[in-house]
Amino acid sequence: MKKNVSILSIGDELLNGFTIDTNSSWLAKEISKYDFLDVKNNLTVKDNYEEIYSSLDYLLSKNNRFIFITGGLGPTHDDITKNALMNYFDSELICDLKYMKSLEKRYPIISRELIKNQSQILAVSNIIPNSKGTAIGMALKHDGTDLFILPGVPAEMKNMYHEHVSKKFIDPFFKKKIKYITILTAGIYETKLYEILRDLIYENKENFRVSFLPSYSGVRIRLMSNNNTPLDGFKNLIIKKIDDYIFGFNDDTLEQVISKDLISNGKKIAIAESCTGGYISKKITDIPNSSNYFIGSVVAYSNLVKEEILKVNKKTLVEKGAVSSEVALQMALGVMNKFKSNIGIATTGISGPSGGTKEKPVGLIYIAIASKNCQVVKKFNLIPDREKHRRIATQVCLNMLRLFLKK
Amino acid sequence: MKKNVSILSIGDELLNGFTIDTNSSWLAKEISKYDFLDVKNNLTVKDNYEEIYSSLDYLLSKNNRFIFITGGLGPTHDDITKNALMNYFDSELICDLKYMKSLEKRYPIISRELIKNQSQILAVSNIIPNSKGTAIGMALKHDGTDLFILPGVPAEMKNMYHEHVSKKFIDPFFKKKIKYITILTAGIYETKLYEILRDLIYENKENFRVSFLPSYSGVRIRLMSNNNTPLDGFKNLIIKKIDDYIFGFNDDTLEQVISKDLISNGKKIAIAESCTGGYISKKITDIPNSSNYFIGSVVAYSNLVKEEILKVNKKTLVEKGAVSSEVALQMALGVMNKFKSNIGIATTGISGPSGGTKEKPVGLIYIAIASKNCQVVKKFNLIPDREKHRRIATQVCLNMLRLFLKK
Repeated sequence: MKKNVSILSIGDELLNGFTIDTNSSWLAKEISKYDFLDVKNNLTVKDNYEEIYSSLDYLLSKNNRFIFITGGLGPTHDDITKNALMNYFDSELICDLKYMKSLEKRYPIISRELIKNQSQILAVSNIIPNSKGTAIGMALKHDGTDLFILPGVPAEMKNMYHEHVSKKFIDPFFKKKIKYITILTAGIYETKLYEILRDLIYENKENFRVSFLPSYSGVRIRLMSNNNTPLDGFKNLIIKKIDDYIFGFNDDTLEQVISKDLISNGKKIAIAESCTGGYISKKITDIPNSSNYFIGSVVAYSNLVKEEILKVNKKTLVEKGAVSSEVALQMALGVMNKFKSNIGIATTGISGPSGGTKEKPVGLIYIAIASKNCQVVKKFNLIPDREKHRRIATQVCLNMLRLFLKK
Repeated sequence: MKKNVSILSIGDELLNGFTIDTNSSWLAKEISKYDFLDVKNNLTVKDNYEEIYSSLDYLLSKNNRFIFITGGLGPTHDDITKNALMNYFDSELICDLKYMKSLEKRYPIISRELIKNQSQILAVSNIIPNSKGTAIGMALKHDGTDLFILPGVPAEMKNMYHEHVSKKFIDPFFKKKIKYITILTAGIYETKLYEILRDLIYENKENFRVSFLPSYSGVRIRLMSNNNTPLDGFKNLIIKKIDDYIFGFNDDTLEQVISKDLISNGKKIAIAESCTGGYISKKITDIPNSSNYFIGSVVAYSNLVKEEILKVNKKTLVEKGAVSSEVALQMALGVMNKFKSNIGIATTGISGPSGGTKEKPVGLIYIAIASKNCQVVKKFNLIPDREKHRRIATQVCLNMLRLFLKK
């Protein structure tokens, strides 16, 4: 039997659109790792006494095993969470002397008054210490519900959750389970994937749930177990059917996968970017130690750079145009030769909003990957929106590189 | 007297941590543009009948003028919002024939059954058409509350809000007001800004509220009017005190501001990036028509590229090291000469996690900007975390370029 969990976020800034609440989603993801726990409600209210009282009435009526309350624990006049809880639970505020001493040591320049304020907890609660900030946290029991009151600053909240809440209050009573796995694909549409996997999904629907999550960086396939049937067997059946499209699992990224491949085969790459404008190079260098395999790039926005640095033929530029398969290939070979790499990668396209023609509309892109023995150039018509075009083109290029390295 | 607004988001995926709810924050920001409207509650529940009923009980008890409901309008078995509302409001589902015809025309390959499903609205509601997707929207009145039921897909929801909801239901009854303005600064710490502005803020605290919002891209200063006192006078007093640090207002970005400056003065730039790895070029080319002033870049990750393409002196590289003010300047001049630009920009630093030494720790970076007549090199010790270092370095470099162009 599943137990309910609810999250209450308190803060004006969460309701005026200036701050996107990421805490609730993070907490929900943590809770989803446990069997028999289910986040049912997520409520956000202002720093307002009446709203806090009525939200507590609502959530406490829902038979929750755990309620997480975040926000409003700072020292300013806007932060009323502690006082509101004191009234609601008919308790009083007492100073945790040990915590106060530790704050005085850690923050010698903060005023004594502020430190005292930040060291107060509800008399009916137990302290949840905060090692990354000043705001003290609290745990309290009310009927069958454990309430955890944590600061809204994400780094502090997450740390207190891991250091105290999950260890003391959740892990001893609830088992963690890998209840899902995410298979990451690239280079294939959702409808096509579904066509390939439909029968397999149907045959296993008693035990497994499958969701398709399309995004600009590819379609993620999430497998969930309905009844704790181990996922591995089903996962392997799926992998067998769509192996070529799978680049990784869970939190993997294309640039990480490529990094591993390049390090293991000792190859070095260089990149010539036109429309992607540095995006691919940025992604490649997001990875620590990418200097082991990445020599460098040329962002060849003007034709002058294509000609003078990359040695693209002037005649080809005039006759075929800068956005052509011939120029893409010459750019890839040019940067490979110039930078003495094993592999050269190039993009040339029209991200828009202007620059499109009837023959070469906004969205068109050529991507080339070349080594001494093998050259590939592909043409794509991607979404004709500058930001999306560049983002998708970067992913498509990285996926082409992944497949190129597999050969 | 302020009127309450609440937002109800429906969807399992919002409560298992896989999807961060951005719709609520977007809606809250839109609502905050109106005088006398105040988002009081934001509640997220699962695709579950009981939860939807009790959330409606809760929100309808709160004297809301408007309630926005998003999510759960798709065609799959998980999408139960329409049926739940039908039961709750004791209504029935009827097909909007005109909308159905339009869907048939727009989506000729979708099955008739699905189109019929997506064209059904509650008998007690009025249609809110969706021109970006299939899911139909609804507006219905209950006691003094207008409820709007919209799809969870952000692009569809936003479009329907702007095309129908705000036009018909909000604008005619509530006045829009510029209630706040955000001043964007770069190159100065929050504490320093506060020191400069403290007296001014104190003197005007009856009429204006000032918040400092530090982030990796600079400190934003938000001015809000307490009582509809026009903001302009106070804004100008602040600008006068910190003019040099202000790069824009509200949604401006450094790369937009630089774009305007470069277009107006006709100068062209080229960039040599080491540790930033293409990030600066990517930001510059995010802007449409950046080809008017951006010639290109060299991402010089290896010393070979620094020497051979950028003509950095080998002796300097050996004696001073790749991360040095001398090399930064030679890179900037090198790319300027090679690419025949008016201005050359260069970065060289250590983003980590490895590569740091005692003399040159992770976080160190030199940024150079050069024209024929003027050269600037600056040294910074930024956060020693690869992702943050590269992000902050990019912003710092763009701000240096902005100031360089002002001279």
